[in-house]
Amino acid sequence: MNPPAVKVKSTLAYLRKLFIMPDSPDKFIEFGHELLEMIHDFFQEKGGIHSSITLPELSRIFEQTAVPDEPVLIKDVLAEIRSKIIDHSVKVGSPYYIGHMTSAIPYFMILLEMIIAALNQNQVKIETAKASSFVERELVSWLHRLVFGRTDAFYKRHVQNPKVALGNVTSDGSLANLTALLVAREKAFPPDGIFPGLRMAGVEAAMRHYGYGRAVILVSTRGHYSIKKAAGVLGMGEENVLNIPVDANNRMDVRKLRLRVRRLCRPEEKTRIIAIVGIAGTTETGNVDELHKLGEICRETGAHFHVDACWGGAAMLVDEYRPLFKGIERADSVAVDAHKLLYCPMTMGLVLFRSEKDLQLIRHSSQYVIRRNSVDTGRFTIEGSRPFACLKPWASLKIIGKEGYGLLFRQARKLTGNLKDILDNCGNFETLNVPELFILTYRFIPERVREQLAAWGEALPDTDDKTSVKDMDRKIRKINRLINGLNVKLHKALRRDDTTFVSRTTLESTRYAPQNIVVLRAVLVNPLTSMQTLKEIVSTQNRIGLQLWRDFEPAYERMLKG
Amino acid sequence: MNPPAVKVKSTLAYLRKLFIMPDSPDKFIEFGHELLEMIHDFFQEKGGIHSSITLPELSRIFEQTAVPDEPVLIKDVLAEIRSKIIDHSVKVGSPYYIGHMTSAIPYFMILLEMIIAALNQNQVKIETAKASSFVERELVSWLHRLVFGRTDAFYKRHVQNPKVALGNVTSDGSLANLTALLVAREKAFPPDGIFPGLRMAGVEAAMRHYGYGRAVILVSTRGHYSIKKAAGVLGMGEENVLNIPVDANNRMDVRKLRLRVRRLCRPEEKTRIIAIVGIAGTTETGNVDELHKLGEICRETGAHFHVDACWGGAAMLVDEYRPLFKGIERADSVAVDAHKLLYCPMTMGLVLFRSEKDLQLIRHSSQYVIRRNSVDTGRFTIEGSRPFACLKPWASLKIIGKEGYGLLFRQARKLTGNLKDILDNCGNFETLNVPELFILTYRFIPERVREQLAAWGEALPDTDDKTSVKDMDRKIRKINRLINGLNVKLHKALRRDDTTFVSRTTLESTRYAPQNIVVLRAVLVNPLTSMQTLKEIVSTQNRIGLQLWRDFEPAYERMLKG
Repeated sequence: MNPPAVKVKSTLAYLRKLFIMPDSPDKFIEFGHELLEMIHDFFQEKGGIHSSITLPELSRIFEQTAVPDEPVLIKDVLAEIRSKIIDHSVKVGSPYYIGHMTSAIPYFMILLEMIIAALNQNQVKIETAKASSFVERELVSWLHRLVFGRTDAFYKRHVQNPKVALGNVTSDGSLANLTALLVAREKAFPPDGIFPGLRMAGVEAAMRHYGYGRAVILVSTRGHYSIKKAAGVLGMGEENVLNIPVDANNRMDVRKLRLRVRRLCRPEEKTRIIAIVGIAGTTETGNVDELHKLGEICRETGAHFHVDACWGGAAMLVDEYRPLFKGIERADSVAVDAHKLLYCPMTMGLVLFRSEKDLQLIRHSSQYVIRRNSVDTGRFTIEGSRPFACLKPWASLKIIGKEGYGLLFRQARKLTGNLKDILDNCGNFETLNVPELFILTYRFIPERVREQLAAWGEALPDTDDKTSVKDMDRKIRKINRLINGLNVKLHKALRRDDTTFVSRTTLESTRYAPQNIVVLRAVLVNPLTSMQTLKEIVSTQNRIGLQLWRDFEPAYERMLKG
Repeated sequence: MNPPAVKVKSTLAYLRKLFIMPDSPDKFIEFGHELLEMIHDFFQEKGGIHSSITLPELSRIFEQTAVPDEPVLIKDVLAEIRSKIIDHSVKVGSPYYIGHMTSAIPYFMILLEMIIAALNQNQVKIETAKASSFVERELVSWLHRLVFGRTDAFYKRHVQNPKVALGNVTSDGSLANLTALLVAREKAFPPDGIFPGLRMAGVEAAMRHYGYGRAVILVSTRGHYSIKKAAGVLGMGEENVLNIPVDANNRMDVRKLRLRVRRLCRPEEKTRIIAIVGIAGTTETGNVDELHKLGEICRETGAHFHVDACWGGAAMLVDEYRPLFKGIERADSVAVDAHKLLYCPMTMGLVLFRSEKDLQLIRHSSQYVIRRNSVDTGRFTIEGSRPFACLKPWASLKIIGKEGYGLLFRQARKLTGNLKDILDNCGNFETLNVPELFILTYRFIPERVREQLAAWGEALPDTDDKTSVKDMDRKIRKINRLINGLNVKLHKALRRDDTTFVSRTTLESTRYAPQNIVVLRAVLVNPLTSMQTLKEIVSTQNRIGLQLWRDFEPAYERMLKG
C-alpha cells in the first residue's frame, strides 16, 4: 500500500534536528502545508462517514505486535498516517454526521493546538506553566461567574488568588463529575475530633465513625454512566447510586425524589445522602432537570448538589437559555465540557464549585512539586500532569464570543425543529422527546402502524372492558417490540450505508413508558448541517426503513389479528 | 499593550467559515505560517526562562472575571496570545531548563497535534474513532510486549481482540496509577456468592464481607504523591498507604518491606495488602526499585504488584537499560508516561496489565455508548471522552525508533555523568544520589564545609568517646540545617536570576540519613543541552551560591566553635 519506507540512519545530530527551535521554520512549514492539504482532502472526499473498511480488515492493518525496529522518515510516517489512519477515520465534522456530541470544530482550534504543543506547558505547577496558570484561573472565573453569578467583589478577590481554586480544568466530563463527587464525599464525612476525615481514613472508618451503614448518590434514570462509574471508583459502590425515575419529558420526577429522600432519611436507614445530581442536558435526550426544585431538596437534607451540565452548560452563555437552568446558581458544583457546546476539540472538562472552600477538602502537596505554600494549580486536581487545554475555550470565548455562541445555538435549535418537522411530514416516523437542547429522539414506524398505536392509545382511557384494555395493551407492547427490532436493524443498515449517521439508544421514558423503546438519536450542533442535509438524512432512513419493513410486515399482520 | 481589537460583527455566515472544511486552506496556511514564526521567535528569544514578569503583574493581566462580551478577530486573539501568554510562558524546551521532566519535544509532535485536532476523534467509542481505536490497541500491544514479553501467540490473539484490553491510554500517569490501583482493589475484594464485589457494593460492605478491618498499599518513601492521592480517591484512605524506607540508593529497603509484610499478615491484624507498588524511576532521584524482589514478595502474599514506571518505563526500549528493570515482567500492572521519556507533548499516560483478564474487573457499559457487546475502548477506562493522543507515541516510535531512543538515552546518561563531573571538579558541590535514569540530586556546599563534614563523617566510626560522637553528630546536623537554608535561598535566587533552571526537593535518603537534606535536582533529558550548557549552569550556581554564603558564614564559624 505504501512505497517501501526510506531507510534512516539514526545519529544524534539527526535527532537533535527533530527537536524544536530550528534555525528556520521552513521544513516545518513545508510539512505543515502538506498536512493541511491532506486534512483538507479528507474533509472534501465524498464516500462514507466511517470509511467502508470493515473492522476485521482494519485489524489486519494494525496487527504489528511489537515496537518497530527500524526508524522511518517523518514524511513516510505522514504518508502512512494518511493511508492507514486518516482515510479510515470517522468524519465527525461531516454535516451528515448528526449522531453524537462530537462535531465539526472551528479551524482556529488547530492553530491553538499548535501553540499548546509548542509551548508544552504542564499545568501542574507554576515552574512549568507561568502565564498558562493565570489563563486557567481566568477561564475558571468566567465560567464560574456565568454559572453562579456571585458578587463582583468575590471574583475580584479570587480570580487570581492562588490560595483557593474556584474549579478545576479536567481531562473530560467524567473526571469533572468524579472530582465533584469526591468533594461531596469528603464534605459528607469530614474530619471530626481525632477522626481525620474520609480521605485520610477511608470509607470503612468514616462510616463507622459517623455511624452510617450506607452512603448514597441520587440521580435520575437519565444520569450519565460516569456517575455510577465515579461511585465505584470512590469506593461508595455502584449499587449506592439510586436512580430516580423521570417524567415524560426526561426530567427527574421530583415527587418520587422527595418520597425516596424521605425514606432514606429515616434514622433506622442509617443512610447518608452524599449528593443529589441534577442533569442539565441529558446525554440521551438533552433535557434539563428542574434544578431549582432539586436544590431545595438538597438544602433540606444537607446533601451536596451537583449538576452535570457537561452537555448543556455552555448554553448559559446565551440569555434565552438561562431560564432552562433556573436554580443552577444554588448548586454546590457544576461540570461542563469544553469539547461539547464550546466546540473545542477532544478533550477538556471543567468542574466549578460555588464555594471557594470546597476544593480545599481535596488539596494535597508533595516535596518536589505542588509544595504546600506554592501557587501550583496541581494541588487541587485528581490528574497530575495536565496540558494547557484551557487555551482553547479561553480563545474561543473571545473569537466566537457570547454573540457567536448565541447564533450557533439558535441555529442548532432551528435545525432541531427542522428535523422534527421533516420527520413529522414524512409520516413514517414518530418523535419521542420534546427537545430542549438540540437532541431529538425518534423512531422509524410505518404510518399505518403509528396510526394503529395512536388509535389504541386514544381508545384505552375510554374503555371500561378490562379484557379489552389488557388485550390492547398487550398488542401495543408486542408491536413496540417488533418496531424496536426494526429500528435496531435500521440503525445497523444505516451504518452499512454510511452516507449519514445518527446514533441509537433505548428509552423507558417515552409515551409508551415504562416499556423500553429503541430510538434513533440526532444531535444537531454542526453549523454546516442544513435543511437540505436533514432532508437527505430522513429520506435515506425512510427508504431503507421501508425496505426492511417488508421482512417485519407479516409478523405485524399476525399481531393485528392475534 | 495590544492595539485595540477590530470590532467583529457576528453572523452565521462568518461563523460557518470558521468551521473546518474550507474550500481552500489558504487562510489556514497564512495563520499557520504566522504562528510558526511566533513560536520560533519565542524559542530564539534570549532572556529568562520564566520571563521576568512577576506573579502579581501577571495577575493584573489576567483579571477579567467574566466572559468577554464582544467577539474579536482571530488575528487579534493570536496577537494577544503572543504578548500575554507566549511571552510569559516557561521555556521548558530551553537547554538551560534542566529542572523538571518536561523538556523539549521533536517538532513533528506539533504536526501530529494538528492531525489529532483536525480529525477530532473521540476514543471512547468506535462510532467516533474508527482507525484510531485500532492504533490505540496496536500501541498498547507494543508497550505491553516491551514490558511483559509474553508469547507471540498471546499478542497475535489479543492485539486487536475487542473482547479484552491489555491496557488503557490515560490522560496522565496519575490516572494510570489510579486505574492500576482500582483494578488491584477489585481483585482484593472480588464478587463472592451473593456479594457482588467491592465496585458494586462499596468499601465498607467489602471489608465486612471479607472480614478485614483494614486494606493497605505499600510503596517506598520515594513513591509519587499520586499513589497516596489514588488511595484517597478510591476510598481506601491515604493513611493506608504505608511508606517503606529506602536504602542509600533510594530503592525500597526489601528487608524492611519483608518485616512489615510479615507483621501485616498476622491474622490479628485483619489487614488485606491490596498492592505493593514498585518504582521504576523515582520522581526525585530516578532510581529503580529491585523489582524482582518486590515481585517475589507479592506472589508470596497475593498482593497485586504494580510498577510505577511513569518516568523510567520508556528506557526499556534500549537493551542496555533492561537489567535495571529485572522482574518487571512479573508485575501485574505497569504505568508509563508518553510525555516523559517518549518525548511526547503534554499529556498521555498508559497503564498495562499483564493479564488480559484484569481490566474486565472494571468494565462498564451503557445504552447509548460503550454497549455491552460493543468494541468500544471506553468500556475499560476511568475517563470518558478521550482524545486520539496515542497517535503521538505511535508515530514517534516509528520516527525516532528504538535506535533513536537509544541515542537519546545514551546522550542523557552522558550529560548526567558530565554534570556530576563538573560539580565534583568545582569543589563547592556535593552530589547526593547515584543516578540510574538521568536525574542527579546535589547541593551547593562550600568546599571547606564539605571537607569538614567529610572529616567528621570519617572519624565517627573510629571514635570510642561517646560524648565526642554525640558532639560531632550534633554539629553535622546543625551545619546541614544551615546548608539546607543556603540551598533554599540559592534556589530562590536562581529563580530570580532565571537564566538557568533546576528544581529542588528534600531527601532523607542521602549519606546523612535520616536527616532531611535540601537538594537541587537536575533532569538531563534535553538533547539540546550540551557540556557547555552544563558548565554555564554550574558556574551560575557557584557564583550565586558563594555570594549567598557570605551571609551564612558567620553562623558557620560559630557552629565550628560551639
